[in-house]
Amino acid sequence: MNKFTLKATAESYVREAAEYIREKMQYSYGIDTKEDKNDLVTDVDKSVEDLFKNKIKDNFPGHRLMGEEGSFENIKDLEGTVWILDPIDGTVNFVHMGTNFAISLGIFEDGEPLIGIIYDVMNDELYTSIKGEGAYLNDAKLPELRHRSLEESLVSFNTGWVLKDEKLQRIVRKVRGTRSYGAAAIELAYVASGRIDAYISMKLAPWDIAAGYALLQEVGGIATNYKGEQLQFLSKDTLFAANPAVYKEIEEELYR
Amino acid sequence: MNKFTLKATAESYVREAAEYIREKMQYSYGIDTKEDKNDLVTDVDKSVEDLFKNKIKDNFPGHRLMGEEGSFENIKDLEGTVWILDPIDGTVNFVHMGTNFAISLGIFEDGEPLIGIIYDVMNDELYTSIKGEGAYLNDAKLPELRHRSLEESLVSFNTGWVLKDEKLQRIVRKVRGTRSYGAAAIELAYVASGRIDAYISMKLAPWDIAAGYALLQEVGGIATNYKGEQLQFLSKDTLFAANPAVYKEIEEELYR
Repeated sequence: MNKFTLKATAESYVREAAEYIREKMQYSYGIDTKEDKNDLVTDVDKSVEDLFKNKIKDNFPGHRLMGEEGSFENIKDLEGTVWILDPIDGTVNFVHMGTNFAISLGIFEDGEPLIGIIYDVMNDELYTSIKGEGAYLNDAKLPELRHRSLEESLVSFNTGWVLKDEKLQRIVRKVRGTRSYGAAAIELAYVASGRIDAYISMKLAPWDIAAGYALLQEVGGIATNYKGEQLQFLSKDTLFAANPAVYKEIEEELYR
Repeated sequence: MNKFTLKATAESYVREAAEYIREKMQYSYGIDTKEDKNDLVTDVDKSVEDLFKNKIKDNFPGHRLMGEEGSFENIKDLEGTVWILDPIDGTVNFVHMGTNFAISLGIFEDGEPLIGIIYDVMNDELYTSIKGEGAYLNDAKLPELRHRSLEESLVSFNTGWVLKDEKLQRIVRKVRGTRSYGAAAIELAYVASGRIDAYISMKLAPWDIAAGYALLQEVGGIATNYKGEQLQFLSKDTLFAANPAVYKEIEEELYR
């Protein structure tokens, strides 16, 4: 199967999962307590991962799935084709807001990103990329990220982390503005589409960032861990993703 | 004209303005530089305010308009019926992101909120309220805000302000999570719909908050300035809006 067909097939699974999530939320509209909502998120997480597990088993028997809900333990390398899935990225938003969460799916081939799909389910914004073919927001091709200075940038850092890190505080004082959305996949998609210019987080799993990393490759974005090292996608790590010019300016602040 | 007809009429103006903004953004999709984008926002701000100015003059000759673009100077009191308009709330988002901005319209009668309309234009989320008749997100009635503890809350404070205010830092360390969206009207609509539980800002104009204040009245939310004093809607001020239980807990932290 070529990369275009693989992307179209994966996208159809994501849309099927999103439809399931929307129905489930509709059906669960009345539930009130945090405990019920947490049950809902566990339930949906599990069901969406099962959906992908079954589809991959039936249609891509040579591929493997790395996911939040239990499929992770078996993955110790990224050889061959690996689907890296977060069924609901932004679970607190899912539970608390009923919106602003995403399905995040990266498909890697021998450790390199081949396809990225991030679907902001309730806002119906679908970000996709294919290696060498660019990235899209719905039907619009995302342009290569343009030069931007730090002082005209919007950056997304978690306020709690900023309070613990003087270097981040220095950066916050220099930028045009700060934002925070509580869903790593959406924030990475925002960096890739130039809506924000940098995103830093102190702890993320491979499935939080795999799809966003794939998107960024296609628009000239940069993503490393917070120390500036290459991401490995095999364990939890920090993340520093940005517009290339903004990455450079922040890097100088962090490591000087 | 009764309040239901007035709300329906005002909503039709907001939708007309939103249609104009969407077309304008489509048409200006190609423009690249910050200067061009700033021209666009000035242009759209002015045109939307003119649209309302003309509609009100023709159809509500006894009403007055308080708006960002120049209609403000003449308003020294809130007697009679005053339309308080922000044509684009979240101008940085408008320029930088092309989304996550809102039209914000509050209609006050003798200083009291009668109607609130906040339209998150690109995400097509319309929040409305009529005094005594409740608040809505699109067609769904928003429930009365339920009890929530500070530690299970999502709060929105600008990170830059948090760095200058130790009390806010204490609160940030206690909550479930922080968010920041860069558009006061959207953050107030989020408080009113229970998506977030508190929003604090250090400088806002009447047109940033009038509609959100109207919404909050209908769901049992609380909004004062940061000192806990009643909002006046005649000059810039701080803002502290929250779920009532969360308001109380934050208040104890701030003023103890």
